[in-house]
Amino acid sequence: MAITAPRFSLLWLPWLLLLLTTYVSATLLKPPRLGVLRETTGRRIPDGKSSSSILKDYQTFFYNQTLDHFNYRPESFTTFKHRYVVNFKYWGGANSSAPIFVYLGEEAPLDYDVGGIGFLPENAPRFNALIVYIEHRYYGKSIPFGSREEALKNASTLGYFSSAQALADYAEVITNLKKNLSAETSPVIVIGGSYGGMLASWFRLKYPHIALGALASSAPILYFDDITPQNGYYSIVTKDFREVSESCYNTIRNSWSEIDRIASQPNGLSVLSKRFKTCLYLNYPLNTSSELKDYLDTIYAEAAQYDRPPTYPVTVVCGGIDGAPKGTDILGRVFAGFAAFRGNRSCYDPTEFNYPSETSVGWGWQSCSEMVFPIGRGSNDTMFPAAPFDLNSYIEYCKKSYGVPPRPHWITTNYGGHDIKLVLQRFASNIIFSNGLRDPYSSGGVLENISDSVVAIHTVNGSHCLDILPASQHDPKWLVMQRNIELEIMDGWLAKYYIDLLESLQS
Amino acid sequence: MAITAPRFSLLWLPWLLLLLTTYVSATLLKPPRLGVLRETTGRRIPDGKSSSSILKDYQTFFYNQTLDHFNYRPESFTTFKHRYVVNFKYWGGANSSAPIFVYLGEEAPLDYDVGGIGFLPENAPRFNALIVYIEHRYYGKSIPFGSREEALKNASTLGYFSSAQALADYAEVITNLKKNLSAETSPVIVIGGSYGGMLASWFRLKYPHIALGALASSAPILYFDDITPQNGYYSIVTKDFREVSESCYNTIRNSWSEIDRIASQPNGLSVLSKRFKTCLYLNYPLNTSSELKDYLDTIYAEAAQYDRPPTYPVTVVCGGIDGAPKGTDILGRVFAGFAAFRGNRSCYDPTEFNYPSETSVGWGWQSCSEMVFPIGRGSNDTMFPAAPFDLNSYIEYCKKSYGVPPRPHWITTNYGGHDIKLVLQRFASNIIFSNGLRDPYSSGGVLENISDSVVAIHTVNGSHCLDILPASQHDPKWLVMQRNIELEIMDGWLAKYYIDLLESLQS
Repeated sequence: MAITAPRFSLLWLPWLLLLLTTYVSATLLKPPRLGVLRETTGRRIPDGKSSSSILKDYQTFFYNQTLDHFNYRPESFTTFKHRYVVNFKYWGGANSSAPIFVYLGEEAPLDYDVGGIGFLPENAPRFNALIVYIEHRYYGKSIPFGSREEALKNASTLGYFSSAQALADYAEVITNLKKNLSAETSPVIVIGGSYGGMLASWFRLKYPHIALGALASSAPILYFDDITPQNGYYSIVTKDFREVSESCYNTIRNSWSEIDRIASQPNGLSVLSKRFKTCLYLNYPLNTSSELKDYLDTIYAEAAQYDRPPTYPVTVVCGGIDGAPKGTDILGRVFAGFAAFRGNRSCYDPTEFNYPSETSVGWGWQSCSEMVFPIGRGSNDTMFPAAPFDLNSYIEYCKKSYGVPPRPHWITTNYGGHDIKLVLQRFASNIIFSNGLRDPYSSGGVLENISDSVVAIHTVNGSHCLDILPASQHDPKWLVMQRNIELEIMDGWLAKYYIDLLESLQS
Repeated sequence: MAITAPRFSLLWLPWLLLLLTTYVSATLLKPPRLGVLRETTGRRIPDGKSSSSILKDYQTFFYNQTLDHFNYRPESFTTFKHRYVVNFKYWGGANSSAPIFVYLGEEAPLDYDVGGIGFLPENAPRFNALIVYIEHRYYGKSIPFGSREEALKNASTLGYFSSAQALADYAEVITNLKKNLSAETSPVIVIGGSYGGMLASWFRLKYPHIALGALASSAPILYFDDITPQNGYYSIVTKDFREVSESCYNTIRNSWSEIDRIASQPNGLSVLSKRFKTCLYLNYPLNTSSELKDYLDTIYAEAAQYDRPPTYPVTVVCGGIDGAPKGTDILGRVFAGFAAFRGNRSCYDPTEFNYPSETSVGWGWQSCSEMVFPIGRGSNDTMFPAAPFDLNSYIEYCKKSYGVPPRPHWITTNYGGHDIKLVLQRFASNIIFSNGLRDPYSSGGVLENISDSVVAIHTVNGSHCLDILPASQHDPKWLVMQRNIELEIMDGWLAKYYIDLLESLQS
């Protein structure tokens, strides 16, 4: 369960080559990474000891999951082992009608979540709740076709890798589990973060008979089609930096042209490589200035997305930039900023975020099939260089990579999103959309109450998925309060449910 | 558009043989037919003239529909021509935000519905509504794979023929149409009957961002799993007959053993064939007494299901049975009953309901993939001989017929149904479940209000889908009132919607 940095394995080689080739050739703005957890940004990682003591309460199960729920071709009936993990420690038991907290896995192996998502174990005792974590298909140990290699082979095997199939998986696992535990009257609350938060809200909308309510943390369900301005994401990154320091913001804003200027000089790339201490064994000198710019881009985005206490990465970066000795030039300041963030090292690998992981490979497919976030930037609306979203190039890139085009409008056709208040204010109930406004993905989040019971809880200084990460004694008051409000709301759902249940049992 | 009796064509020969073989060998209780319309039971069929005058207002369109919405395999991207029909005559136009009535096609070619479903054209003027009828995939002219033969070939081509795919089809057609008409603010009310009524209610539940409300006429959404007692259907058939005449009921109840007694005598089948005037060119003598019993069974079920004014088929059958000359024996009375129902003919074809039609062939697949209604009868709980539902035999039959087993619990996993009031009373809105209590399928219908806006409107003397069939000057008051209540409820949905829309436009 110890979470290690992405490791390079020969198995990934073809993928790596594919990624690097297509990435460079496509000159697309790589969409910022989603994800509840990120090891680069000061997340508390359970050490070996505490993590194994946490894990002793969890039992792993596998459900024979149907390959395709919406199709009856013979192949669709194939099953695969679908992993879920249960903690019975706090549960009130079958006859108690005590609730079930179900964490809906996102684009990562489940191992990262068990122990990494504090909300469930920390709050289960209060509710006598059963804790369940369910893995997302095509991640971790929930791989169809017998092996990852086979499952990721091409569009014919990847085709079953979709959000609707994942939601149906969850529906089957929960229904089956409740039956096996004779817990049919136990209400289910689904919880998820980031992409998993989108899944949680959609699950409540699509399967209200299975989930009583949903906590959707940092779920950018409105970052599709033209609902959210394309520059929403980087506007917030920009705002985060500017709020910490105007001079930091200005330094970054001016750095891109400076990098280009140096790069265009004779030996310019060597100069940049030296000044940014790029690792000799890898990319010395840099192949293009874009490598460096993309690296910095990712670091600023990550810092903003996970700008969490106690360290506040944006403050760390700006501390480096602003704190450089007087007279330090722009590049020196930018280097000082990212060195402060990444730590003092003998050298830095500008491609460190490009190594394929289960997440990057899986999400590569998901973002090329249905999860099309049109994230872009205009020429003067952020502190970054212009990089408008271009759907046509995006589609071409995906077709080249996988042989099939994305369906960029399917998400809103299937799950909605346009005019969400108009649609849901008299339909649906029991969804919490939680956000931290420092999180750039909050630009695609639901930030206004839709109705009395479809509500938005956001914190001005919060970041991506902060409310569902492990609590700490040092958590600021606003974070403690955000979590408490969420729990109180759930109390309300449960109270109403038990009243309704009593009535239905007596009728 | 004239609706003709099912015709025998050579194209159907293999299917017919398959049906007959499997039907006889499986000795299963054939599930009673669904369907909004039935030509055998006094439905008003538009004559050539009026029908073509109705049809002149309709324009036919085809949408390039995606073969598989939930899967991204290359084959899933294949498209087929998906038919829908629009009547602009009454519509308020793009900028009026006037509503759109969408009829969701059921298990039949759309031709039967346009002109056959009165509710839409009769009430569109009141709302200035656009009228749209959308065909169900795999019926009529909405056939994937280029031809019916190819589409129905085997489970590999039939696999895409599912309710979830059909709902997604409707979602795409409506979204696309509204965009093309610049009618994004026009609220959509979906309407359907029988299986199509189930689809209408599920569509509102799954796609609330596309449909504001649903009128689900005679939708037996609770006839899955063990939600409804298995004998619900035939209990109501029995009640219908008994309420008309205790002696009629007794005659039918006693007839089955009498048929068996005669059949077991030497030349018994010849005797039965003569007495029931079975047609010489087909089944003379009957092959088994079951042929006759199934025939009668179907006739009683049909009479009850479509027991509508002005003729009231159950009354017609019982009139024949009770009205036979004094001294007529049981078989004579039963014959008189069904002759009164089917009309005086030189001979009767006991297999007349078994001829394959698009509906019977299509529904054959649908009931063997997901639409598993566990309809059965105990030994003494109806006026029919015992025929308990046996899931194992059902599964075996389906596997033998199509090579794949059904998924009998998928419907409730995907759409719900268990504890429907508990689940939906604080979720969902704007659904009318309408039923006529003489309709045997009303046993699986929603007959109680679930909330203020998910309501049940039923009539004691109504039959299957009666409220959405063409109105007549001779309609009884209770039927007129049922329809008026439905319209008033829709008025309420629209009023609230326009208030919300105004608010959203001003914010």
